[in-house]
Amino acid sequence: MKKTLVAIILGSDSDLNIMSEAARVLEEFNIPYEITVSSAHRSPELTTKNIQRYQKAGVKVIIAGAGLAAHLAGSVAAHFPLPVIGVPLKSGALAGIDSLYSTVQMPPGIPVATVGIDNAKNAGLLAIQILATADRKLEKKLLEYKRTMADSVEKKGVKLEKLGWKNYLPEK
Amino acid sequence: MKKTLVAIILGSDSDLNIMSEAARVLEEFNIPYEITVSSAHRSPELTTKNIQRYQKAGVKVIIAGAGLAAHLAGSVAAHFPLPVIGVPLKSGALAGIDSLYSTVQMPPGIPVATVGIDNAKNAGLLAIQILATADRKLEKKLLEYKRTMADSVEKKGVKLEKLGWKNYLPEK
Amino acid sequence: MKKTLVAIILGSDSDLNIMSEAARVLEEFNIPYEITVSSAHRSPELTTKNIQRYQKAGVKVIIAGAGLAAHLAGSVAAHFPLPVIGVPLKSGALAGIDSLYSTVQMPPGIPVATVGIDNAKNAGLLAIQILATADRKLEKKLLEYKRTMADSVEKKGVKLEKLGWKNYLPEK
Amino acid sequence: MKKTLVAIILGSDSDLNIMSEAARVLEEFNIPYEITVSSAHRSPELTTKNIQRYQKAGVKVIIAGAGLAAHLAGSVAAHFPLPVIGVPLKSGALAGIDSLYSTVQMPPGIPVATVGIDNAKNAGLLAIQILATADRKLEKKLLEYKRTMADSVEKKGVKLEKLGWKNYLPEK
Amino acid sequence: MKKTLVAIILGSDSDLNIMSEAARVLEEFNIPYEITVSSAHRSPELTTKNIQRYQKAGVKVIIAGAGLAAHLAGSVAAHFPLPVIGVPLKSGALAGIDSLYSTVQMPPGIPVATVGIDNAKNAGLLAIQILATADRKLEKKLLEYKRTMADSVEKKGVKLEKLGWKNYLPEK
Amino acid sequence: MKKTLVAIILGSDSDLNIMSEAARVLEEFNIPYEITVSSAHRSPELTTKNIQRYQKAGVKVIIAGAGLAAHLAGSVAAHFPLPVIGVPLKSGALAGIDSLYSTVQMPPGIPVATVGIDNAKNAGLLAIQILATADRKLEKKLLEYKRTMADSVEKKGVKLEKLGWKNYLPEK
Amino acid sequence: MKKTLVAIILGSDSDLNIMSEAARVLEEFNIPYEITVSSAHRSPELTTKNIQRYQKAGVKVIIAGAGLAAHLAGSVAAHFPLPVIGVPLKSGALAGIDSLYSTVQMPPGIPVATVGIDNAKNAGLLAIQILATADRKLEKKLLEYKRTMADSVEKKGVKLEKLGWKNYLPEK
Amino acid sequence: MKKTLVAIILGSDSDLNIMSEAARVLEEFNIPYEITVSSAHRSPELTTKNIQRYQKAGVKVIIAGAGLAAHLAGSVAAHFPLPVIGVPLKSGALAGIDSLYSTVQMPPGIPVATVGIDNAKNAGLLAIQILATADRKLEKKLLEYKRTMADSVEKKGVKLEKLGWKNYLPEK
Repeated sequence: MKKTLVAIILGSDSDLNIMSEAARVLEEFNIPYEITVSSAHRSPELTTKNIQRYQKAGVKVIIAGAGLAAHLAGSVAAHFPLPVIGVPLKSGALAGIDSLYSTVQMPPGIPVATVGIDNAKNAGLLAIQILATADRKLEKKLLEYKRTMADSVEKKGVKLEKLGWKNYLPEK
Repeated sequence: MKKTLVAIILGSDSDLNIMSEAARVLEEFNIPYEITVSSAHRSPELTTKNIQRYQKAGVKVIIAGAGLAAHLAGSVAAHFPLPVIGVPLKSGALAGIDSLYSTVQMPPGIPVATVGIDNAKNAGLLAIQILATADRKLEKKLLEYKRTMADSVEKKGVKLEKLGWKNYLPEK
Repeated sequence: MKKTLVAIILGSDSDLNIMSEAARVLEEFNIPYEITVSSAHRSPELTTKNIQRYQKAGVKVIIAGAGLAAHLAGSVAAHFPLPVIGVPLKSGALAGIDSLYSTVQMPPGIPVATVGIDNAKNAGLLAIQILATADRKLEKKLLEYKRTMADSVEKKGVKLEKLGWKNYLPEK
Repeated sequence: MKKTLVAIILGSDSDLNIMSEAARVLEEFNIPYEITVSSAHRSPELTTKNIQRYQKAGVKVIIAGAGLAAHLAGSVAAHFPLPVIGVPLKSGALAGIDSLYSTVQMPPGIPVATVGIDNAKNAGLLAIQILATADRKLEKKLLEYKRTMADSVEKKGVKLEKLGWKNYLPEK
Repeated sequence: MKKTLVAIILGSDSDLNIMSEAARVLEEFNIPYEITVSSAHRSPELTTKNIQRYQKAGVKVIIAGAGLAAHLAGSVAAHFPLPVIGVPLKSGALAGIDSLYSTVQMPPGIPVATVGIDNAKNAGLLAIQILATADRKLEKKLLEYKRTMADSVEKKGVKLEKLGWKNYLPEK
Repeated sequence: MKKTLVAIILGSDSDLNIMSEAARVLEEFNIPYEITVSSAHRSPELTTKNIQRYQKAGVKVIIAGAGLAAHLAGSVAAHFPLPVIGVPLKSGALAGIDSLYSTVQMPPGIPVATVGIDNAKNAGLLAIQILATADRKLEKKLLEYKRTMADSVEKKGVKLEKLGWKNYLPEK
Repeated sequence: MKKTLVAIILGSDSDLNIMSEAARVLEEFNIPYEITVSSAHRSPELTTKNIQRYQKAGVKVIIAGAGLAAHLAGSVAAHFPLPVIGVPLKSGALAGIDSLYSTVQMPPGIPVATVGIDNAKNAGLLAIQILATADRKLEKKLLEYKRTMADSVEKKGVKLEKLGWKNYLPEK
Repeated sequence: MKKTLVAIILGSDSDLNIMSEAARVLEEFNIPYEITVSSAHRSPELTTKNIQRYQKAGVKVIIAGAGLAAHLAGSVAAHFPLPVIGVPLKSGALAGIDSLYSTVQMPPGIPVATVGIDNAKNAGLLAIQILATADRKLEKKLLEYKRTMADSVEKKGVKLEKLGWKNYLPEK
């Protein structure tokens, strides 16, 4: 059984729908990961305990997703010495601007690698890119992934050029 | 010597200039208080230790002031069972909107009593109002304080009516 | 019959659905409260009368919830010497940013303890925290409340770790 | 001596520098006015008294200027049945967005005629326009005022066309 | 037949649903008005012609409602010497913030009396308040209107106090 | 067969529904155009290749539509020497403000002609206006188009004046 | 003497400092242009007259710069059938966000080609790009301009790589 | 001589003052790095060439800093398969909100690890954390760095507690 390299922490289980995109992409790249729920505000001791557990287990990257005054990623980064990726989640009246600012505007000394609002997939990919800095095979897979994306866009482009927009729209 | 009732925590000593307004108004009302520096991100264990110390010492209200992704008040509220007052501080490019959102948009279950950006004076006054809920003398002092404010505004009004704005402006 | 300690004022009865969360949590903690409707703009005299009535009745905390140019909490705070908690409500095109700014950005001298947009539950909890500054039993209940929240998060964490996200999602 | 037609209320005498622009334009059009200081929050009774006094004195329009959570114009509008003009003032971290939202986003039933941030001159002109709805001479003066403005712009246009921008700039 | 006193101009007939609230309140107060569609951008000459027509017909107040880069009220104010009331309409991605800024931030010299986003009812009421500056009967009606509003709020308050929120909610 | 004058590039085929409005108006004016999909981020080489192809083919204007951190128009403008029109698309939590800022705030030296959020129709019209600077017939068609728009507004105005809003609304 | 191809209109002569950047770049490319002052609000007739004059003179592109509720570009676009470039200017409390929204969020049918806030240089370049769609020599000059920019950046890059940042900074 | 592990790219040499903070912290940790200037818009080919050069040289992390419609980090990420860190820079009227949105809101598939506005120091630290995922010594150094930060805060706290704010302020 492979050692866990990435841990995903959700501020609330209501965020699982969005945050599972990070898990999905890690699985696609065969990265062993763990996923749990732990709130910076409602279960601060549990959060600290989890970070210590992950640190001992050799986890290399922690992904933290939270909404509103999203302190989770920052709290994790206060304790964890390796990269922490923050996913600001859209929730409540401010539609994620509050989470974005709460996640990205960290004080000098404690970085959080922030991705776009609700963009858990990019959090997963960023974790893989980080692991790939010491793993040539993974780097190659990422290059392949980029090529596949480019090909898929190109195919759509060719199809749209051929069909014209009037025929493309209903088919989509 | 009187027991400390209010603790003021600064995320950074660069916030002292603004945050001292809270101390000043507490002194005006003779409220025993302590003031210290402790960052939610750069010294998380110290912050937790301070809260425990304050809790044992019988502190009733904690005022926390921080800028940027201001997690300090939320971190304190995660541990402290009594009122936590958050002062979002203006700092950096977003001029305090980031601190305001990071302070006020707490998840259900963990309130932070937020005052206006850089408005440390109101944080001090709110702490006094909270203590006054169990202290009739303090309540009376607050009523007096309100009256003095009203009188001072009224005097300015009368003076402006009498002098007219052209004569009032240079005198100010 | 116990003396009313907290009063909840709604700017409009259309806010009742959200604001009832404050009442609900007060009931959970057995805090005697009153609830009424009174607008800062449409019934200013009634608002003043209500505040005087509450003050005579020994009310310790007033919770005020309003939307748009939300002046209600500020109006109450202009007259009431003890803590006023403001709940900015999401309503209209600006989705509560107008209410947040109108509630929190009070001038020096007249604080309003502001909670998150639509977060009436936190307003109720903050009122309880304020009362707990002079009530050890209540403080203990609040510590218990914190523990229950932490336990509930921990259970979800354990469950998610055990089931994995693919099995957790449909069950939720 | 002529009857006061317009009253200008400042939330604070620190706003006089900006708000005097309203007075200046009223004087230019020979409109009798009064000016005073009265805060919605720090002197609510005085504000109510002033409004009653103005109402008895036959004041037709009230101009109110305030910053931050600017409730002054709304407070006046809650009591005064005739037009209330609100001037949101730039002050503090949010640079007047808070005052703008607090002034303009009034609930249905209580309008405040809002002008641009710090635009006290337009508040004065709007008051004159309101009075001109029942005063043909004043209406003619306003048309003349418009023409003078247009002429002044036109002259600058002609000058710029003639001199070219390189010669116009240093002369300005 | 009575002379038209107020004209309502819509930037687009898709705004009629919102803007009809202004018409409704004018009818409630028996104010003779006209309503038409004319865009500042798509039919600029028509807009100018309409303003001239209204000016000749003795119209005292023009209400203009528009969305997006809402120039309509400003365009009208550029020509019309009496009060112009602007209603910023919520439309498109920016939810009315664009219309609010485009309507209220007029340059010195050309005021637009701006009401809240989509708040056409307040535009109607403001027009009535303006007419009431020269019409005592109308002023009395406005005072009565204020009283009715206050009574209606008070009744709801009494009912809520009596029923409690649990019984009030389903009845609403 | 006529030479392609305008090229439309979509960052993603999910934008086709909105972006087809640009195509539609080009067809209405008989402007030969091409449309394709190519992402600045997912297929950067394809984007560069397309620009070179268009440049060789004598394309005069490129319209680029993208959402989120919308770099597409800027990327195209970095290579293409003739006008690039950017359509910021509404997508994700920030509702198009991110795309607007990412499209319009280009550094000095590399302009992007930006239209309103989701306003692909205006992008098409702007392309036609650009071509019309060297095509008198097209300029005349544009004048006619303006007149038709004005007539259509005028007809609606007349109809609303005749029917009144109560009869107009249900008919709409 | 060459025919005027581009006209620059300033909403106020206080904008000349910024707007002269557009003139400067037009001169650099030897494009004959005119520059004048004319306000959409303070001199609406003059604005219309100017547009008619420019149209008769064969002007191909109009650049309009204005601040606050910046209607100038939209007003010009309402009358002029060829491209109108809008420069939103930073002025007043909202720092140009108001001008940006007022300039770019035009209704379907009346595009304004908007550049970045205060970015008059890009307005000039865009006008040149538009003229270059029918002028091969101009297109070549633009390609050369692009190359010069790239070379200048490259030289700075090489210099920074060689000197290192510590030596580069003081030299700058 | 050690192999370059981190490359820092500046969109403009005017950003060097801020961006040098990233270099400074890399030097503090003895990380071999390169620094250059290359714009996504003004020198797109150079940017692509640089990325290829860095990729061949075995660079593990690229830090990109840019202002306004900050496409640089995204452009780099479109080509580079390993982590790209984006530093949104404060510049121009929007004070860095434009750069933040342009940097962080990347489409799914192409992450940019975004740090706070102007927070180049955190970009440097994040790069070090990424390298530390495969370098135990570096991880230890980071833990030490965290401890030093905490100690420094604690010392300030102790000093403030001892001196009191009145004596601390002038000494600072």
